[in-house]
Amino acid sequence: MQDSLTLQLLGEFIGTLILILLGDGVVAAVSLKKSKAYGAGWVAIALGWGLAVTLGVYCSGFLSPAHLNPAVTLGMAIAGLFPWAYVIPYIIAQILGGIVGAVLVWINYYPHWQETDDPDAILGVFATGPAIRNYPMNFISEFIGTFVLVFALLAFTRGKFTDGLNPMVVGVLITSIGFSLGGTTGYAINPARDLGPRIAHQILPIANKGKSDWSYSWVPVFGPMAGGALGALIYLLIP
Amino acid sequence: MQDSLTLQLLGEFIGTLILILLGDGVVAAVSLKKSKAYGAGWVAIALGWGLAVTLGVYCSGFLSPAHLNPAVTLGMAIAGLFPWAYVIPYIIAQILGGIVGAVLVWINYYPHWQETDDPDAILGVFATGPAIRNYPMNFISEFIGTFVLVFALLAFTRGKFTDGLNPMVVGVLITSIGFSLGGTTGYAINPARDLGPRIAHQILPIANKGKSDWSYSWVPVFGPMAGGALGALIYLLIP
Amino acid sequence: MQDSLTLQLLGEFIGTLILILLGDGVVAAVSLKKSKAYGAGWVAIALGWGLAVTLGVYCSGFLSPAHLNPAVTLGMAIAGLFPWAYVIPYIIAQILGGIVGAVLVWINYYPHWQETDDPDAILGVFATGPAIRNYPMNFISEFIGTFVLVFALLAFTRGKFTDGLNPMVVGVLITSIGFSLGGTTGYAINPARDLGPRIAHQILPIANKGKSDWSYSWVPVFGPMAGGALGALIYLLIP
Amino acid sequence: MQDSLTLQLLGEFIGTLILILLGDGVVAAVSLKKSKAYGAGWVAIALGWGLAVTLGVYCSGFLSPAHLNPAVTLGMAIAGLFPWAYVIPYIIAQILGGIVGAVLVWINYYPHWQETDDPDAILGVFATGPAIRNYPMNFISEFIGTFVLVFALLAFTRGKFTDGLNPMVVGVLITSIGFSLGGTTGYAINPARDLGPRIAHQILPIANKGKSDWSYSWVPVFGPMAGGALGALIYLLIP
Repeated sequence: MQDSLTLQLLGEFIGTLILILLGDGVVAAVSLKKSKAYGAGWVAIALGWGLAVTLGVYCSGFLSPAHLNPAVTLGMAIAGLFPWAYVIPYIIAQILGGIVGAVLVWINYYPHWQETDDPDAILGVFATGPAIRNYPMNFISEFIGTFVLVFALLAFTRGKFTDGLNPMVVGVLITSIGFSLGGTTGYAINPARDLGPRIAHQILPIANKGKSDWSYSWVPVFGPMAGGALGALIYLLIP
Repeated sequence: MQDSLTLQLLGEFIGTLILILLGDGVVAAVSLKKSKAYGAGWVAIALGWGLAVTLGVYCSGFLSPAHLNPAVTLGMAIAGLFPWAYVIPYIIAQILGGIVGAVLVWINYYPHWQETDDPDAILGVFATGPAIRNYPMNFISEFIGTFVLVFALLAFTRGKFTDGLNPMVVGVLITSIGFSLGGTTGYAINPARDLGPRIAHQILPIANKGKSDWSYSWVPVFGPMAGGALGALIYLLIP
Repeated sequence: MQDSLTLQLLGEFIGTLILILLGDGVVAAVSLKKSKAYGAGWVAIALGWGLAVTLGVYCSGFLSPAHLNPAVTLGMAIAGLFPWAYVIPYIIAQILGGIVGAVLVWINYYPHWQETDDPDAILGVFATGPAIRNYPMNFISEFIGTFVLVFALLAFTRGKFTDGLNPMVVGVLITSIGFSLGGTTGYAINPARDLGPRIAHQILPIANKGKSDWSYSWVPVFGPMAGGALGALIYLLIP
Repeated sequence: MQDSLTLQLLGEFIGTLILILLGDGVVAAVSLKKSKAYGAGWVAIALGWGLAVTLGVYCSGFLSPAHLNPAVTLGMAIAGLFPWAYVIPYIIAQILGGIVGAVLVWINYYPHWQETDDPDAILGVFATGPAIRNYPMNFISEFIGTFVLVFALLAFTRGKFTDGLNPMVVGVLITSIGFSLGGTTGYAINPARDLGPRIAHQILPIANKGKSDWSYSWVPVFGPMAGGALGALIYLLIP
């Protein structure tokens, strides 16, 4: 771990910014009208999000442990692998990175918003939403996905990884969760991934945008936090 | 290998649970109505199952050798790389992991079962079934797939792998068998992968479910066991 | 390199068998009626063939240098990295492996041939064919693809690879050639890959099969041999 | 780095040639009528371009640092990792490689041009074009994509990579940018990738070709140069 908290927070900010720029970016690419990737579908989404996280980790790993996710930071603290005093600053840096990443997605696809007349598709670029609105089950789905995420990340710490392979494996993990568990809620599995861009959606003057669906917003925040926490607790029970 | 059989069995249980949660999960994602991944097709299935096995191995490899498959356990015993006395306990742990993993898939996709009116699609999330029902040829197809699986896993033991790469290569192997040989029977190539979730399908109160097709259930159990055994025997013939 | 030529030939036989079983297998999976992968398309083909070659190399690399391709064997001999005396035995072993691999594909998909009424689709599982029949340009397309293949394999010998990564990179190379250059002739880029299965197609009593198109068969044999040879010669010119 | 500038320039020429042959090749495969990959879509494009860059790096990395991109060469010079005196020769070698690679794509797909009656599809094989023509926003989109590219490549230099993994990670980066940011302009993110093939399109007697759209050609040249430069400058600000 690095000496200075400031550098670590810079790392979390940059990494989450890249993660959201590339992650929300692939949803924009697939969902926005006249995009060359329009309609490329779920394989593109799942691969694209995995690669986004891989690159977020590569772009920040020289500064910070590259959590890029409040649920991961919480899980690492519970597992005793991260100081509790840094949890809140990390989460703030991650959410700020998410907001700025989402602003860059808005800029990158600027001419495409006014071509897209579906406000749900536009919101979907920024924030997750349920395939079937059922808050308890949506919460459980985010819970399970993030449980797997944090448990697996902790299992990775037990293994040894050859230099440079770790961020690839993290991306593989994200892609797998997306393919397998994400069909229900769009797998936020990361409060900063959902809250940061949702704030950007609320604030930015996006053409054709609708409401930011704040009534759902607690699910992809508290579901991942709870799931990640339990993932860490279960991991601690294993000798 | 670890000292305690209990820890190894815990590893096999956890690893198979993750394997089924993510593996059956991708079938659910692609097959259940209103899932965001609905219709994503065979590329998603083949990639998703490979990643599921990769993550099952990562999540259990610090506790056990991560067979996660009775046919692999049998093959390793035949090849002299695994003690015969542990074969039955391992298989039990793997099947239990498969059952619990399937229960979690049911929970994760809970609101989607009642939207899906095709009982075959629902069964297909849990258990494999033949594209063309022909028991001898279905048996042979499972036999060939698992022959390749066990022979390749044994060939991997002859090579050296850099730290952390092995589970990725195992996932590549599963994806390859899925793409190339799985079009016939859906490539169980693992009795625990088929039997565990089929038991869950039988027991659970899944909305819109039909019969569990037990008349076919011996094919994805004995085909893989026989194919894995022959794969190990042929491997032993090579100097 | 291993001591015994016999073991090396066994390796080339096994490796090419696996390569064709998985490679022709993915074409069968995508092309044959009632296959669960029917219509999965070119992404499945290109990924599936790359993985097939990766696994062919893993399954034979402990016995032989895993050329699995007469054009690679020729190129390595031209580059001075392989003894000329072994070239013909290697090629024979590779073609025999290709024949047996194709027989196994026929068996694995046995019930599907009679459901598939298009003899061109059936031949396409075994042997390549041109998208537009133009022998000189088809030859050039196979030439270019195999030039890239052999030149890249020789370039790989200049780099260092961490343990176990090499077969993955070879698969990446095959997938890339498939995606980028294979749209014209289906990228045999390997005489054993085309000739072996074409012999199997000629001999086997495949339901609904048509002619084996021997008039085209020289293109995927001599195009790759010539392209591989020039790839090696150009490589030798580089200091 | 190698001793001789000549060998380095040869490396940049070969690597960019391979990059364009395989990169423009996948666009040809997906876009040209009667290609076996016709209609394979954006997943094929994004994966194919990533693999193309990976192989360009593998095929040139034993001769040069494998920039294969004027924006990368400029960024490395700004970051103090590359001598300014070599910048112009490198760029010339890269553009020449791009031209020759595009000529080989024309030859490989020779019979397919006259079957393709859409001149925009033909130009799209060689050069990028905007989904929505808006020069300032198209410029910004190329700027953002190349900013991420150069920043990430510089971040990679801070990490350690196991032998042979680096070109794979570079390919992953290209695929990610393609999936996530490329929907707007087709992600040139490399002046040599766009200018070299556009020159080839202008010069070659391609059947059914139209205009080479020079009015747009400055965007994929100056957008990437500016974005890459800022990526390097921001990187320098990080301790």
